[in-house]
Amino acid sequence: MSRPTPLSGFPEFLPAHRQVERHVLQRLAETFELHGFANIETRAVEPLDQLLRKGETSKEVYVLRRIHDESGDAGLGLHFDLTVPFARYVLENAGKLEFPFRRYQIQKVWRGERPQEGRYREFTQADIDVIGRDTLGFHHDVEVARVMVDALRRLDFLPGFRLQVNNRKLIQGFYAGLGVSDTDAVMRAVDKLDKLTEDQVREQLVTEAELTAEQAESCLALARISTTDASFVDQVRALGVQGELMDEGLAELAAVIEGCAPLVTDRVEIVADLKIARGLDYYTGTVFETRLRGHEGLGSICSGGRYDALASDGRTTYPGVGISLGVSRVLVPLLNQGVVTADRSVPSAVLVAVVGEETRAESDALADRLRANGVPCEVAPSAQKFGKQIRHAERRGIPFVLFPSADGPPEVKDIRTGDQTPVDIATWTPPVEDLTPQIKEQQ
Amino acid sequence: MSRPTPLSGFPEFLPAHRQVERHVLQRLAETFELHGFANIETRAVEPLDQLLRKGETSKEVYVLRRIHDESGDAGLGLHFDLTVPFARYVLENAGKLEFPFRRYQIQKVWRGERPQEGRYREFTQADIDVIGRDTLGFHHDVEVARVMVDALRRLDFLPGFRLQVNNRKLIQGFYAGLGVSDTDAVMRAVDKLDKLTEDQVREQLVTEAELTAEQAESCLALARISTTDASFVDQVRALGVQGELMDEGLAELAAVIEGCAPLVTDRVEIVADLKIARGLDYYTGTVFETRLRGHEGLGSICSGGRYDALASDGRTTYPGVGISLGVSRVLVPLLNQGVVTADRSVPSAVLVAVVGEETRAESDALADRLRANGVPCEVAPSAQKFGKQIRHAERRGIPFVLFPSADGPPEVKDIRTGDQTPVDIATWTPPVEDLTPQIKEQQ
Repeated sequence: MSRPTPLSGFPEFLPAHRQVERHVLQRLAETFELHGFANIETRAVEPLDQLLRKGETSKEVYVLRRIHDESGDAGLGLHFDLTVPFARYVLENAGKLEFPFRRYQIQKVWRGERPQEGRYREFTQADIDVIGRDTLGFHHDVEVARVMVDALRRLDFLPGFRLQVNNRKLIQGFYAGLGVSDTDAVMRAVDKLDKLTEDQVREQLVTEAELTAEQAESCLALARISTTDASFVDQVRALGVQGELMDEGLAELAAVIEGCAPLVTDRVEIVADLKIARGLDYYTGTVFETRLRGHEGLGSICSGGRYDALASDGRTTYPGVGISLGVSRVLVPLLNQGVVTADRSVPSAVLVAVVGEETRAESDALADRLRANGVPCEVAPSAQKFGKQIRHAERRGIPFVLFPSADGPPEVKDIRTGDQTPVDIATWTPPVEDLTPQIKEQQ
Repeated sequence: MSRPTPLSGFPEFLPAHRQVERHVLQRLAETFELHGFANIETRAVEPLDQLLRKGETSKEVYVLRRIHDESGDAGLGLHFDLTVPFARYVLENAGKLEFPFRRYQIQKVWRGERPQEGRYREFTQADIDVIGRDTLGFHHDVEVARVMVDALRRLDFLPGFRLQVNNRKLIQGFYAGLGVSDTDAVMRAVDKLDKLTEDQVREQLVTEAELTAEQAESCLALARISTTDASFVDQVRALGVQGELMDEGLAELAAVIEGCAPLVTDRVEIVADLKIARGLDYYTGTVFETRLRGHEGLGSICSGGRYDALASDGRTTYPGVGISLGVSRVLVPLLNQGVVTADRSVPSAVLVAVVGEETRAESDALADRLRANGVPCEVAPSAQKFGKQIRHAERRGIPFVLFPSADGPPEVKDIRTGDQTPVDIATWTPPVEDLTPQIKEQQ
């Protein structure tokens, strides 16, 4: 076999980068669990008819076929997000779950994209959702925002970020109050303010959503509103539109912004941003997007919102609210740009040297004593000269080398300082900060 | 959408069972890291020509097709094990890895099996391998056995288990010493001693492997040898066959058995078992299988061995030795039989009660104080009567309910004993054993 080349769109990590990813995933899991979210995993595949329920994403599904089954595909596709599988899991297990059900799910998803820079065909998402049976208190909208902000701020190497919140009731109520009939067409146009100029969006509002110039201007005025507190309410009211649905949306959005206010810091910005629409997704209230400071080109790294019917089996409806973090979307560029890495490529804090192959068992025994005290370590692969064994540790970033001694306690060398001292193997452990690989921001 | 039904062969867990699985996976990862193994993950897909290099498993591959690509499949299939992807990863990244390279990998694999009782189409494996460039010391064979035994014995709810070790050099050298030409045919027949009677295997040795009755008898005599120490060496020699390759195999197998001897306990049996052959896999020395006491019907839960060429790019050869644990193979039956479960379905150790919706923010603040001290908790979803809130906790297995108080410290009720006492929220935490869900063996 000749040397293989990477597959475009399927990022893989070297061990040091994988350490960073594991650190991130563990930290996320810890935070979600502190907030009472239970972990689940769903199978990688769903029946195609489930995956294709929403027209838009169907083009990106990978379909499976058993290689020796010539009769056609297996009726299964790889999931392209974690929401469709979660909705199915809830319906399938409804009788065995307690509602409201808080779950987090950290898994890979697949999209059959054409190979293209920055587009992943396999990537990891971390989703939190709260789902209720029949009803779900609005305060859970505030909760999921707080939990995800808490999770992101605990990733201390991340740059600052901005959570942008809006509410579909607010904007749809506003559009309806203006006399617009096709409010979806307006949302689709406003959603493009990221990529198009205001003039181009105005043009689309008039030609595609069939608004009057005045209506289009009002929609753009609404989309321009962005405040870090509840003052957006007065700014919206100043536009002179009225309606019950809009009022409900205003109150909900104010509640999210005020509920998240205690989490605001230098790194954490929380904004009522009335241009956020989340395009074609079927949200019915709160919507979220998140941008990373200095990495705005990544788009929204963390999005979600409220669905009045996340799942339904015809008789019972399950409303839900959640946010999904694009873990690979954030990590792959940060790792590739060298923003962050781990300080060693192996878990070992100690390399136990080998004096000679005939005494390897003694080195093994020393290593087992270290492990019994929770110290990750490895034994040198061969009884080379000590200088070579030290370089073996150095190349992996292992900070300590332990030398067995025939007539006395073993000695430990800190290979960063060169200090070497005898130690009591029954009690010695490296300093806590050397015990596990550390995540380092690079300058 | 009507209520969905499970897909045969794709096991999924309810939250309490997923806790057990997470506990197992974390414990395995911890042990592998104590032994200096670095974690990697590889993408779910490999090019089909890679997956099909070994004829035997090709029938089980799931092939991928982009749904709107009518031109045919994408040339990619889901990996059916973690060895093929690891070999590819090593070749692809050889210049960036340090050898010998110890890695562990815990991921799902897929096999396009026909739906059938006990056959999984998606399941989780935990693999450890050590891979060298050009050479790899034999002591790594002993190492991977020790590491996997250590990992299994740290899973304290597991029944006892038996690691069965053999050596291809030993048996192939023995067969060659008997004058057998097609040693592979002999191995394939001997490998069936699990499922067929000795008479049936004798029959196959004569008809399919074309042995004489006497040769067949010697092969069966070899296969009957099974010792917990190095005494198998004398038993083999007593069969009167000689050869260099066999001697090498005898010495290696004795070294593995003796190297693992310190790990033997009531729960851990380690046996030189000369009928173990690992069928068609391309092992070249040590081979491993493992059986779970009282669950022998599961077959080998943990198998592996030495490859002289785990990977090769034509110029450089990478020998390796490893073992693969079938995590789902062990866990799914144990969970389904109720042998083990978790004592609650949520991570929360505390439910913070809500006095009224207008004071929810106070309950949220108490919860945040608990989280700051590392206590997983959740806030009641609605301000029902306290009796209902307590039952809400009870249904989830949450052991404590915290009641806010308008005029004094909050009070904590242990709902198992009914005891309720005022606590200092700045310092109170539940006992350590209640902080996280506990894994329980059921009687």
